[in-house]
Amino acid sequence: MAYKIKVGITQGDVNGIGYEVILKTFADPAMLELCTPIIYGSPKVATYHRKAIDSQTNFSLIESAANAQQDRLNLVNCNADEVKVEFGVCSAESGQAAFEALQKAVEEYRAGLIDVLVTAPINKKAIQSDAFHFPGHTEYIESELGNGQKALMILMNESLRVALVTVHEPISRVSRLLTKELIEEKITILNDSLKRDFRIEIPRIAVLALNPHASDNGLIGNEEETVITPAIQEMAERGVKCFGPFSSDGFFGSSDYKKFDAVLAMYHDQGLIPLKTIAMDEGVNYTAGLPVIRTSPDHGTAYDIAGKGIASEESFRQAIYTAIDIYRCRRNEEYIHRNPLRKLFYDRRDDSDKLKLDSAE
Amino acid sequence: MAYKIKVGITQGDVNGIGYEVILKTFADPAMLELCTPIIYGSPKVATYHRKAIDSQTNFSLIESAANAQQDRLNLVNCNADEVKVEFGVCSAESGQAAFEALQKAVEEYRAGLIDVLVTAPINKKAIQSDAFHFPGHTEYIESELGNGQKALMILMNESLRVALVTVHEPISRVSRLLTKELIEEKITILNDSLKRDFRIEIPRIAVLALNPHASDNGLIGNEEETVITPAIQEMAERGVKCFGPFSSDGFFGSSDYKKFDAVLAMYHDQGLIPLKTIAMDEGVNYTAGLPVIRTSPDHGTAYDIAGKGIASEESFRQAIYTAIDIYRCRRNEEYIHRNPLRKLFYDRRDDSDKLKLDSAE
Repeated sequence: MAYKIKVGITQGDVNGIGYEVILKTFADPAMLELCTPIIYGSPKVATYHRKAIDSQTNFSLIESAANAQQDRLNLVNCNADEVKVEFGVCSAESGQAAFEALQKAVEEYRAGLIDVLVTAPINKKAIQSDAFHFPGHTEYIESELGNGQKALMILMNESLRVALVTVHEPISRVSRLLTKELIEEKITILNDSLKRDFRIEIPRIAVLALNPHASDNGLIGNEEETVITPAIQEMAERGVKCFGPFSSDGFFGSSDYKKFDAVLAMYHDQGLIPLKTIAMDEGVNYTAGLPVIRTSPDHGTAYDIAGKGIASEESFRQAIYTAIDIYRCRRNEEYIHRNPLRKLFYDRRDDSDKLKLDSAE
Repeated sequence: MAYKIKVGITQGDVNGIGYEVILKTFADPAMLELCTPIIYGSPKVATYHRKAIDSQTNFSLIESAANAQQDRLNLVNCNADEVKVEFGVCSAESGQAAFEALQKAVEEYRAGLIDVLVTAPINKKAIQSDAFHFPGHTEYIESELGNGQKALMILMNESLRVALVTVHEPISRVSRLLTKELIEEKITILNDSLKRDFRIEIPRIAVLALNPHASDNGLIGNEEETVITPAIQEMAERGVKCFGPFSSDGFFGSSDYKKFDAVLAMYHDQGLIPLKTIAMDEGVNYTAGLPVIRTSPDHGTAYDIAGKGIASEESFRQAIYTAIDIYRCRRNEEYIHRNPLRKLFYDRRDDSDKLKLDSAE
């Protein structure tokens, strides 16, 4: 039997729609044929949510992912204390429960007990504590499992992949944060990820302008000229197929994005407005650039509809699919490169067409 | 016979797609049943474009809109000198020709010879001169025909109207430009325009946030708290139905915009990315807030496809429809309010239900 990928799932904020989208996703038995899911959470909280939304999804309590059962939805208890669920409320208790689950998942990932990580949404305010002082999941995972490598946020759906140069930054800071080096770094991570995680041989990357009309030749701002274009040129010289800077409204309006494998946006809303406008419910957030594979749905805790049973699980399901796809792509790439042929090359100074089969690399 | 609205049309930049979209629009005879069009331009340039794109649309040369013929596409010559057409080239000559046409149209509008103004796109660089030193059409028309009133840019298509607080500004300046007063001014103009130009009795206006996640309660910037929310509250107290600030990616992704009559965006791309993503080819730019009615297509000169015959005239046609619609709405409103009934009201201090029919206003 083929190996089933072990998907570690963190419960996220217990007052939001995390459990709802998890339970709805695994209501379909086909999901259990695809992977072995391990929820990091609390059985009591899961049961509470299960009743609230009248779900029929069952789960099995286990000690650790080491004991995960195939064809079951497994749950590892991470919350020693009783956790009170208050739908739609931002509480330190819920933040603490979310953090404990995340910690346990990271610990078991390090121990090699799970293959990929899918995180349900947290409340960024509730989770802050002495132990957790990160803007969000991405930064925490970069710090814990990044091995010194830099993360890049990629948001995607069926028709579009968008990576962000700056993420959760006020508009007033965006221009100051943009440097040639930063954009080059993001293009590099994006290009590598498209090759390795999505198996695109020669990725085509579109880079967006910062200003309206891509600055209209410098009439409206100058970051295009001073920062973005030089970065694109530098990366193009290094062999990356990157193009731009494109005026962002026309770029999405004309569907030009369909001609590229990914789009690099300068700031959050520039990338997320078109992504969500094109398809709201299927968006997946992938943290590229790290050894660990981590995805999440592109929605938040959705406090306003928590516990009502009306949340869509589509984005969460897609997050699981994406994590599995990327895992397979990476294994596939490793497999292909496991036994490389020795490189055969011509001596540059040799005018003959004779192959130097005996030359060393 | 019903009165046909006289639509003044400026030729715009002669090296772009202006004439192409004009000629294609009036290739359909039904357009001439709807209005009497008067192009401000050059017969030689029009003929040159006509040949280049192999158009069958005919036009009649007239001295002034005073002599406009019904059921004909009229053209007033505004360019004394010979104008050389060089497709796709940004030239001072072309800018000058565009400016002369615009001047003549403004002059004839002032003389009451045309009812509305529809402008073909100009090149903002080519048109600059000692006489014209405006960022674009909007500012020029505000200055020439505004009567001291402030213009507001509204972009719209079938499903969405977006107004912009800041327009052609670098991202780095946007935060500094936003003030409570400016946002209130824009909400006021937008509200008045929705009532008068679109005949919406009680308009519902959505106001967007500036920062990602609407600042996440102040974690990402603070303009929502310090500027935008106070402006919304102030306007709501004055009786305007305005709501927000909404996180812009989720707002468009969830189709919440369909619940409102218009959306006020803080900066250019925030409004134009979703508008063009939803429907690229039908966008219309309307300059609200002024006595004159002026619309334009939402595309530019499109130098890259000029003279090739492949430009879509849809946006230009919609610009004409919109100008006519707004003209009719305003006439309609005037008609309705021409002979108002005297207001009948109860004396507030009078407990009886008796109407004070004889009280003065």
